[in-house]
Amino acid sequence: MAMNALNIPSATISRMVTYLRILEKLESQGVNRTSSKHLAEKAQVSAFQVRKDLAYFGRFGTRGMGYTVNVLKRELRRILGLTRPWNVVILGMGRLGGAIANYPGASEYEFSFRGLFDVDSNIVGQEIRGLTVLHSNQLAEFVSSQATSSQAIDMGFLAVPPEKAQEAAQLLVDAGVKGILNFAPAVIQPRLMGEAGKELEKAEEWRDVIVENVDFLAGMKRLAFYILNPSLKELEKEVEL
Amino acid sequence: MAMNALNIPSATISRMVTYLRILEKLESQGVNRTSSKHLAEKAQVSAFQVRKDLAYFGRFGTRGMGYTVNVLKRELRRILGLTRPWNVVILGMGRLGGAIANYPGASEYEFSFRGLFDVDSNIVGQEIRGLTVLHSNQLAEFVSSQATSSQAIDMGFLAVPPEKAQEAAQLLVDAGVKGILNFAPAVIQPRLMGEAGKELEKAEEWRDVIVENVDFLAGMKRLAFYILNPSLKELEKEVEL
Repeated sequence: MAMNALNIPSATISRMVTYLRILEKLESQGVNRTSSKHLAEKAQVSAFQVRKDLAYFGRFGTRGMGYTVNVLKRELRRILGLTRPWNVVILGMGRLGGAIANYPGASEYEFSFRGLFDVDSNIVGQEIRGLTVLHSNQLAEFVSSQATSSQAIDMGFLAVPPEKAQEAAQLLVDAGVKGILNFAPAVIQPRLMGEAGKELEKAEEWRDVIVENVDFLAGMKRLAFYILNPSLKELEKEVEL
Repeated sequence: MAMNALNIPSATISRMVTYLRILEKLESQGVNRTSSKHLAEKAQVSAFQVRKDLAYFGRFGTRGMGYTVNVLKRELRRILGLTRPWNVVILGMGRLGGAIANYPGASEYEFSFRGLFDVDSNIVGQEIRGLTVLHSNQLAEFVSSQATSSQAIDMGFLAVPPEKAQEAAQLLVDAGVKGILNFAPAVIQPRLMGEAGKELEKAEEWRDVIVENVDFLAGMKRLAFYILNPSLKELEKEVEL
């Protein structure tokens, strides 16, 4: 993919996800054409921000003519890696894991839940969405049994209590899972190796691991901050210009 | 609060939440002192980033001496508005709403769930964590009955299906709730008013409303993108320097 790869901010990636959602809605409403101004209004950002975000990934649309909705949608799906299937395991099948497995739209974009894991003997063995919950100590064996199939596991979702999150992340990484989506209110850290006095390096198995966070409490705290400081929310938007 | 209010990026607010979590963990481990380098390592960002983030809010610590853990923790809690109680209602008490109401740590930091609402007659009337689920058409009356008490509602959490999210957000705003945490994979938009040909303005009731999003699917898509483009994740960190 031709892109200006040097410094794409993670906020741009988050907004690309939002633009894609808007384009899908427009398409379902039978709208054929859109513009950076139109997308900006729907996404609650500036038109300049939309153009800047898209420019990281190439040139889309025609100057003064805007974008064709289904073409831009296809491009964004390609950029975001949503044209291939993603095979997912969930660790922690309590209320939160159950809510994730049943989240409306999780099977959109070819995210497929392939394995569900827990350590609680009351939960192990239950059937959830056609899958039998396995014990977490079966994770490594499960992942390796899938490794050469078309259902090789790409991502692990952590829905365990916060005090178990680091340990469960290590379990995923030891099993060879390179992508972690962490729902626990805990900061996941790579295992570090090295000698005293030298800079510590990531342990070998953590080298290519990506961790992203979906954090309820962090959302609550950001909201609390902005309720107390509403003017900062407005300013932020202007600064993006 | 004395702060450099002109342009605090929302990513800074998210990282402040992370620093606070790390400080709380250090304190619970009996660690008294820390440094921007130490915090940076734990938070997986650069030390420069830590110092830059904190500098928006004032001066903390002593040059060359680092920070006192419990002092910095107290300051961050104050900055993030976590020293006062927050009263919350949840709209949508399906699996996700149930998971939120029972999320470990949600009652930390004085977030209190005061009312739970749904439209499903199978759910309305159920008891969840000591609260009886009410019908969503009772929301406005409930919020106004609390308005002058110490339990006045500050925030509404949206845990409804995506196609119901906009309507449920309007219900919250009409009831006078100014902070919305949206868990649905949908972009919430203020109601706009105005005449044809003029720039549209937010409807009066949306003027001071803050919406923050906690979005499972967006997290999944960001993760997909970074798995395909791991080098961008690394570069992002360096660029922050």
